Amino acid sequence: MREIVVIGIGAGDPDQVTLQAVKALGRADVFFVLDKGDVKQELVDLRTEILSRHASGQHRVVVGRDPERDRTTSAYVEAVDDWRRRRADVCAELIAANLGADEVGAFLVWGDPSLYDSTLAILDDILARGAQSFAVEVIPGISSVSTLAARHRIPLNQVGRPVQITTGRRLAQAWPDGVDDVVVMLDAQTAFSAHTDQDADIYWGAYLGTPDELLIAGPVSEVAPEIEKARAEARDRKGWIMDTYLLRRRS
Amino acid sequence: MREIVVIGIGAGDPDQVTLQAVKALGRADVFFVLDKGDVKQELVDLRTEILSRHASGQHRVVVGRDPERDRTTSAYVEAVDDWRRRRADVCAELIAANLGADEVGAFLVWGDPSLYDSTLAILDDILARGAQSFAVEVIPGISSVSTLAARHRIPLNQVGRPVQITTGRRLAQAWPDGVDDVVVMLDAQTAFSAHTDQDADIYWGAYLGTPDELLIAGPVSEVAPEIEKARAEARDRKGWIMDTYLLRRRS
Ligand SMILES: C[S@@+](CC[C@H](N)C(=O)[O-])C[C@H]1O[C@@H](n2cnc3c(N)ncnc32)[C@H](O)[C@@H]1O
Ligand SMILES: C[S@@+](CC[C@H](N)C(=O)[O-])C[C@H]1O[C@@H](n2cnc3c(N)ncnc32)[C@H](O)[C@@H]1O
Repeated sequence: MREIVVIGIGAGDPDQVTLQAVKALGRADVFFVLDKGDVKQELVDLRTEILSRHASGQHRVVVGRDPERDRTTSAYVEAVDDWRRRRADVCAELIAANLGADEVGAFLVWGDPSLYDSTLAILDDILARGAQSFAVEVIPGISSVSTLAARHRIPLNQVGRPVQITTGRRLAQAWPDGVDDVVVMLDAQTAFSAHTDQDADIYWGAYLGTPDELLIAGPVSEVAPEIEKARAEARDRKGWIMDTYLLRRRS
Repeated sequence: MREIVVIGIGAGDPDQVTLQAVKALGRADVFFVLDKGDVKQELVDLRTEILSRHASGQHRVVVGRDPERDRTTSAYVEAVDDWRRRRADVCAELIAANLGADEVGAFLVWGDPSLYDSTLAILDDILARGAQSFAVEVIPGISSVSTLAARHRIPLNQVGRPVQITTGRRLAQAWPDGVDDVVVMLDAQTAFSAHTDQDADIYWGAYLGTPDELLIAGPVSEVAPEIEKARAEARDRKGWIMDTYLLRRRS
């Protein structure tokens, strides 16, 4: 039976891989990679370093072209669904052409495969088509959320209280109901700026786990402009940014 | 300067430690352990295995007596606060008596230190007292939540949607507002049983990452009795249980 391992490789520090991930990396015959045109060199370098440190001497890497997502439409979920279907087309072909009988294939996932990542949905989609079969194993990874909390030395929750993980798109609309602690990912803008009227602290981090890491914390009413400035400067300098933050309302 | 490293060691599988954690384990001179009377032998064994595999040959282990939490009161947050203060008393003494100048001390934390763990609050409390000082570093770990998702091969969120992490105590009161995906920890009862009227799936896991791992998934209206039964049997057999689950409402 063919097997595909989905391996969480941490948020940016090559030492964030687990021993379990190291074993899975060593067991894989072939690594599947989807590349966009606009590759972030640091992320490619991290992947290369992880493979050169932990993959077996005989491993192969096969690269597919990541299709573009339609960013013009306002129908976000439909656009993501459509994108995922086209990525599944690409991956199905890569797997059919490159994963031999009894071989182990692997996808590397930034952070933890459980958070805002489509690899598992893509594999489900391919299996549902019925044209090919393989077993799937998932190796959890250190998410950017865990890394954010660790670098700020804070827990995500207050005692006995809930925490919500959401997107910048949603936070821009409203502070979520029923929670004082909100972790925000995928914030292409700076949705926290809509909440400077809250009696809340923000714990912000960008490029977590990498040498470029930025950390800012304080009352959101005071530090929001500082974060906006640091964020814009860093994005200009590097051409891309990955950031996440916790908003903690005093309860 | 003295230093204390708070190390996430994963949810139950010794191979879930990261390379970063392995390095921190090797760097520590002294490990601080709080033990209750009713120690769970498997958890002590896991800790012992991790130390014997990764700690330096010269490390010391100092054990303090974990104070009891008042479980008779209905004032949950106050009881936890009081408990934390008394744990801080114990830890402050352990650290003062055992962590030499320029030494590195370590606390091992199950899963990830960012989720429902009081170690960071205890260290903050000790530092706020002003009687002693040390630097704090946090090494993120694989949480039971990431492990749950990995073992069920599912993401925690639906596309572009939020996920809330909460406690059994809260879920027993009501399904949280504004979310279809709810992860539940610290459920001493079986709070999911209050929600069998929902059009929702449950993904349940106990003893995740250990040889005793149990996994059950399906529509909560159908599998709730099966989970209750498996849970009660396992708890009777082993004398304790650690379980967590995702409730996913079809949206
Ligand atoms: C597509 S999601 C993938 C998340 C990933 N699976 C994880 O567990 O962290 C990408 C988002 O994760 C966050 N992120 C990922 N890596 C990050 C890093 N190194 N520093 C800060 N944020 C990061 C950002 O919010 C980014 O928009
Ligand atoms: C005090 S909290 C600590 C959580 C831990 N810091 C983490 O990241 O997983 C304890 C709760 O975590 C969950 N938990 C911890 N380890 C688990 C395991 N191996 N299997 C299932 N649930 C676990 C259970 O919900 C338990 O009630």
